[in-house]
Amino acid sequence: MTIKISIDCMGGDHGPSVTIPAALSFLKQQPEAELILVGLEETLRAELRKHGAESNPRLSVKHASEVVAMDDPVEVALRRKKDSSMRVAIELVKEGAANVCVSAGNTGALMAVSRYILKTMAGVDRPAICSILPNQKNGPTYMLDLGANVDCTPHHLHQFAIMGSVLVSAMEGIKKPTIGLLNVGTEEIKGNDVVKETATLLRADHERGLLNFYGNVEGNDIFKGTTDIVVCDGFVGNVTLKAVEGLSRFVKSVFKQNVLSMMGAVLAKSSLKKLNPERYNGASLLGLKGLVFKSHGGANAYAFEWAIKRAFDAAKYNVQEQLSTMIAELMPDTPDAQRQV
Amino acid sequence: MTIKISIDCMGGDHGPSVTIPAALSFLKQQPEAELILVGLEETLRAELRKHGAESNPRLSVKHASEVVAMDDPVEVALRRKKDSSMRVAIELVKEGAANVCVSAGNTGALMAVSRYILKTMAGVDRPAICSILPNQKNGPTYMLDLGANVDCTPHHLHQFAIMGSVLVSAMEGIKKPTIGLLNVGTEEIKGNDVVKETATLLRADHERGLLNFYGNVEGNDIFKGTTDIVVCDGFVGNVTLKAVEGLSRFVKSVFKQNVLSMMGAVLAKSSLKKLNPERYNGASLLGLKGLVFKSHGGANAYAFEWAIKRAFDAAKYNVQEQLSTMIAELMPDTPDAQRQV
Repeated sequence: MTIKISIDCMGGDHGPSVTIPAALSFLKQQPEAELILVGLEETLRAELRKHGAESNPRLSVKHASEVVAMDDPVEVALRRKKDSSMRVAIELVKEGAANVCVSAGNTGALMAVSRYILKTMAGVDRPAICSILPNQKNGPTYMLDLGANVDCTPHHLHQFAIMGSVLVSAMEGIKKPTIGLLNVGTEEIKGNDVVKETATLLRADHERGLLNFYGNVEGNDIFKGTTDIVVCDGFVGNVTLKAVEGLSRFVKSVFKQNVLSMMGAVLAKSSLKKLNPERYNGASLLGLKGLVFKSHGGANAYAFEWAIKRAFDAAKYNVQEQLSTMIAELMPDTPDAQRQV
Repeated sequence: MTIKISIDCMGGDHGPSVTIPAALSFLKQQPEAELILVGLEETLRAELRKHGAESNPRLSVKHASEVVAMDDPVEVALRRKKDSSMRVAIELVKEGAANVCVSAGNTGALMAVSRYILKTMAGVDRPAICSILPNQKNGPTYMLDLGANVDCTPHHLHQFAIMGSVLVSAMEGIKKPTIGLLNVGTEEIKGNDVVKETATLLRADHERGLLNFYGNVEGNDIFKGTTDIVVCDGFVGNVTLKAVEGLSRFVKSVFKQNVLSMMGAVLAKSSLKKLNPERYNGASLLGLKGLVFKSHGGANAYAFEWAIKRAFDAAKYNVQEQLSTMIAELMPDTPDAQRQV
């Protein structure tokens, strides 16, 4: 089976100098993949020439005349740049020409354009961004939402849990992945009303055997790997993820401050690799009528290749179809009016 | 000037085996301090004997017959253990026998008992927990609230900003410390309504020259040291702090996994010391009619001593008086009814 991936080659801080080598490297390793490189055709062809990769039957270039800048407001991406590489790459998914799209472009724009082009999946009110973080059990912890929704109702968080569960089940081959609800304590009485009501919804699903709800988890459980999935609203998720990234960068900068600690970092390299955020690049935009993956804007070629890999896996393991089925199963009788709360 | 500090010696995961050596070490280094050790008298005297410190004119022991366990619910600490070391230590502040109290006991209980005994400061609706984190500018970033308040109005966040500003001004000698509002982006349009309304209140204070409001900051700004103070609600603060602690523990565990990386960690030690969370132990409970400091429950003697140092500094630099003055100045005309929102 061939998986077709459309790549927004102009997105991210580095554009084609990162996205093209990543795409070429991925293509070599994955014979089942076909890639559609989207962006300014001349620029892309020049970069391909650099790598001696002008022609490849599994590689095509699709011209798009505009580029969404990393600091473009959502409105600009949505209304003014209608021929952007981001938008064209997403349109390929909508048209069925690609199974999944990958972009390192700005998150707000990517979510907005994806929602506009693909539309939200039936039964889902708010798409969410789901990323993965390394944990002490050597596995990834999936965390959502990471910034798409700053105000969430219990119903929204409930849907995030369902979508996260389907994603992990498909991507990791875990039949009933455990779901943790991010809170200020593990006891049931802890937290605000939204979190408490969400727990009630998740416990009901657990009792019906539909989801594997572990209960409340705390911030440190993300890295302990207490649960496969950590659910939170986009405000908490975004702040937490950025704080964690900030600490990682701080640790790196401290290592670079003198020769001894640099030597230390070299010695510790094999272990530190486990923490390498590059290996954990590639967040899913869940709940749309099509698969979209978001790479970190600052990703290097190695990290961007990981995002392509995850996108490939998601398409290969039919995440999209499984999401539709599971959402229909878990929320068959939720009237639309109630869902729009 | 002598600063009297009451220490809840039974609190924390380790009790007197940590708190007493920390107290003794601090006392040696700080001639202006007098310590009141609170707890089970026999246990405390036995521990003092171990260290050959039975008698010291600047050290006294105050018996308390009960201990608040780390997992005691707030109700137990508040209603059933009326002679706990935690409560007696706080009562010493209320009576004026101590200038400040330090405890490594459970946070929820410490806040609840402190509120009950000391009461909330006039003009303050919700006391907050303010902790410090290391940053890339080699200074501490003060962050509040860290868990006392899971649901906050803009008015509450506004007060946290004021209290944080007074604390940093007194502790760090910075006249108008910069205040950042934790958000999902730096632009004014980002975030939920609570954050946006808080920004409006803070901008107004900034324009009146009362506070130094920088604007929105993101999670990574905590470690960049973009602002002296980062303000957020207790839910976000608690989750973020625990996530960051979780990552630190994960990094440590990775270092311990093989000989090479252990050697690496040893070589990198002097640099890594900067990140040492032990040096950043000691959170303030702000907004009460008396000073209370909270040590991490798992603190070792070195870390607990840092918490005592911070408590000493806060008392020495008159944080309490400055808080009263500043709050009266900044919110002279807020009617009580409005404050209770």
